Parts: sequence; structure tokens; C-alpha cells
Amino acid sequence: MARGVAGPEIERLIQLLARLPGLGPRSARRAALHLIRRKELLLGPLAEAFARANESVVVCRTCGSVDTRDPCTICCDGSRDASTIVVVEDVSDLWALERSGAVTGAYHVLGGTLSALDGRGPDDLNIETLVQRASRPEVGEVILALNATVDGQTTAHYVTDLLQTASVKVTRLAHGVPVGGELDYLDEGTLSAAIRQRTPF
Amino acid sequence: MARGVAGPEIERLIQLLARLPGLGPRSARRAALHLIRRKELLLGPLAEAFARANESVVVCRTCGSVDTRDPCTICCDGSRDASTIVVVEDVSDLWALERSGAVTGAYHVLGGTLSALDGRGPDDLNIETLVQRASRPEVGEVILALNATVDGQTTAHYVTDLLQTASVKVTRLAHGVPVGGELDYLDEGTLSAAIRQRTPF
Repeated sequence: MARGVAGPEIERLIQLLARLPGLGPRSARRAALHLIRRKELLLGPLAEAFARANESVVVCRTCGSVDTRDPCTICCDGSRDASTIVVVEDVSDLWALERSGAVTGAYHVLGGTLSALDGRGPDDLNIETLVQRASRPEVGEVILALNATVDGQTTAHYVTDLLQTASVKVTRLAHGVPVGGELDYLDEGTLSAAIRQRTPF
Repeated sequence: MARGVAGPEIERLIQLLARLPGLGPRSARRAALHLIRRKELLLGPLAEAFARANESVVVCRTCGSVDTRDPCTICCDGSRDASTIVVVEDVSDLWALERSGAVTGAYHVLGGTLSALDGRGPDDLNIETLVQRASRPEVGEVILALNATVDGQTTAHYVTDLLQTASVKVTRLAHGVPVGGELDYLDEGTLSAAIRQRTPF
């Protein structure tokens, strides 16, 4: 929008929308118009949803996930397996694993990875509470579900070293061919890992 | 996000964000997490911006644009040329023309095009008020700045017929080579128009 064409409230809405990931200035303008046209259906409800989320969202002091209660829904869920802690980098990874339905245990969100380049050290991550949790007698296994990137794997090694003091089994996700993946399009590293870690058919 | 992983306030936020143009379910989750992580900087201000826009946005009864005042900023601006009305399909077109800085006159937003396919007839568009405005003695020219699509051009012809009663000059945007465009990539229609409507150098 050009300056001074519409009221300051609309300009501010566009400016803030443009700071969402996936929206640039042009798509923020489109989104703002879309919202304004659907005032009753979308702009009003979103205003309320934003205000509510802003009031109620908290970070779980146990696992580091976000929820509207602390401890979070997963940490409170007595039906989950308390003997396993799945360590993830980010809340989005936790959500992805929950969608898969493959995790029955608890989670621990580090809040990122170690990164020399970005100047993130161990103190910037949620590692200390992980060591404390892993040292509890009921915990038998820590599954490192970190990204298969350099930073993710560096962090995995660092966390594994720290967990030596706690008497837990430390495992990590399997490497291999993604389901639906075509061999021709996979890198050599993935293919070697898939061969080395082959399973009986 | 999987069901029941976080509070209902977060789920509702994601659902509503996913209805913005340009955001799907995955990017809505990303956007929600981005907002939650930047609570003070982004979620709070956006909640306020949405609430304010929701309270204050109105459609200008003169031209059909959106603003926080009625008549809108442009219709109220005495320094603009009242003798020219630029007709556009949508508010986003008005904003685009304002960014170009090439329009000194007033605007009229139709709110779409005639479309047999989508069942949109003249009564669904903001055409009646245009004829009224164009009949005023101070108006000398109506510039049809509609999209160069079939629906846009059909609408342009329809509007031109209606404007016969008002004694105004009706013009439309020039067709031709877009600035920065390469001839090799342009369609035949554009190239013939550019040749036919060539201008002295």
C-alpha cells in the first residue's frame, strides 16, 4: 500500500503481517485485504484468538514446550510412558512427532542447537533441566530426535556426553531411506546408512 | 499440530492463520510458533492491531475503498483532481496504482468483475454509484483500469455502455510491452497491441 492511502490502523496491520514467516510485503497486503473483506468471519475471530493466545500461552517449565498450561498437556498426561524422554530441537519437531503417533513417552525441547556460527552455546539451550530429568529413577531411555544436520548432530554428541552421569540408555533416530523415497534421488550418506543399518525382511 | 498437544487457544490460532491467503496448515503452524516465541514483539502488537482494525475499518460509501474513515482519505483529499475517476476491480489495484504515483484523480472500486462462470451480475458490483458519480458536472473523464482478462474487459464494455448517459470521456489503460519486458517472452496479443498503439520516439 502507498503511504497515506488508508488509515494508520490498516498500515500497521500490513506491517505486522509482513513479519510473519512466509509472508512478504505483497502477500501481507493481500492477507490484510482478505481479512478486511471477511471482517465478521476472519478479522474479528483472529483478533480474539490473538488476544487469547497472548494472554494464555506459557512455556512448560518441565519440557520447554508451549501450551496454555504449565506443566503442559503432555507432561500432565499420566497415560504416557514416563520412562522415555524424546529430545527435540524445537516445538515444531515435537508437533511433527506427535502427528506421527510414534512417540508414547515424554518430550524435552532444547530450544535450538549449539551453533558456533550463530554464537549459541550450551547456556542458551534447555539442557540443564534435561540432565536433571534424565537422572530421575523412572527414566530409562533418552531418544535424541535432533535434525540430521551438522549443528543437530554436534548437539546430539554434546548432550550424550552430559548424560553419561545419568544412568540412562541414549538412542537416536534411525537414518535410512524415507518412506516413499526413490533411491536415485537420495544422497550417498543416506544410502550408505540405509545399507549399514539394514533390517531383516 | 496433532490434536490435544497444546491448549485450544493455540489450536484455534493455527486454524485461523491457515485461512489466510498464502498460508497453508504447515506454514500456519510455523507462523503460530514464530508469534508465540516473539510474544512481546509480535503476538501482543498483532493482537492489538487486529482488534483496532476490526473496530475501525469501514468501506467508503463514495468510492468503495477500505479505510478507517468514510469518506476515505483519497475521497477527502481536496488536492486531488476531481474531474477524473479511475475505475478498478479491487482495493489491491487501487493500492498498486497509488504506489505508481501516476494517478492524480479519484478512484472507484467495483468490487470484482462481471462473471457468468461465477454468477456475478451487475447488481453484485458497485456500478450504480459509479454512474451517479460520473454524471456530476465536475467529472470529465472515467479511466477504466480493469485487468486485461476476459472478465475484466467484459466488465469494461458493460461499464462503458452504462456511462453513455453521463457525458464523460471514457478511456482505458494502454496495452503494450511492460517496462523491463523482453519481446521474446511476450504473447502475440500484447505484441500486436504494442505495434498498433506505437508512439512517436
